[in-house]
Amino acid sequence: MARVVVDVMLKPEILDPQGQAVANALPRLGISDVSSVRIGRRIEIEFTGAADPERVREIADKLLANPVIEDFTIQEVAEEAVPAGEPS
Amino acid sequence: MARVVVDVMLKPEILDPQGQAVANALPRLGISDVSSVRIGRRIEIEFTGAADPERVREIADKLLANPVIEDFTIQEVAEEAVPAGEPS
Repeated sequence: MARVVVDVMLKPEILDPQGQAVANALPRLGISDVSSVRIGRRIEIEFTGAADPERVREIADKLLANPVIEDFTIQEVAEEAVPAGEPS
Repeated sequence: MARVVVDVMLKPEILDPQGQAVANALPRLGISDVSSVRIGRRIEIEFTGAADPERVREIADKLLANPVIEDFTIQEVAEEAVPAGEPS
């Protein structure tokens, strides 16, 4: 069982109003040293067997990202990745 | 200048219809060995100075995630992180 993470972010030259809204809200929390916030998607895909990088690339390109305005990166994560800080 | 990435994912026990829609679309691409797709958010925050982990945690908790249904993880990334595969 392999787990692959695809991160999809807007290209740097594309305006990100959602991120800007968060950035504009930060001073209300008393935080003024943030220069930029960009919001994208993180997609976790679990394969029943091994993950074929070519296949993951195809999924990301055809289903997950809009290549005109978005970039994606693919990373395979450890099989038994237990999220940190979740003792509860 | 520090860059911090906050990954926000639905808790495992919360249904993710968006991810399921992607999983259900995969057989149409000829892909049948995916057992699960979960879709969350990836937020990149750039600080003008050093990033205070406590402060980032506050931002994530109050602005970025809904702690009732979502988990978040925080990671500081290298300062001059250039996305791979972008020679164009």
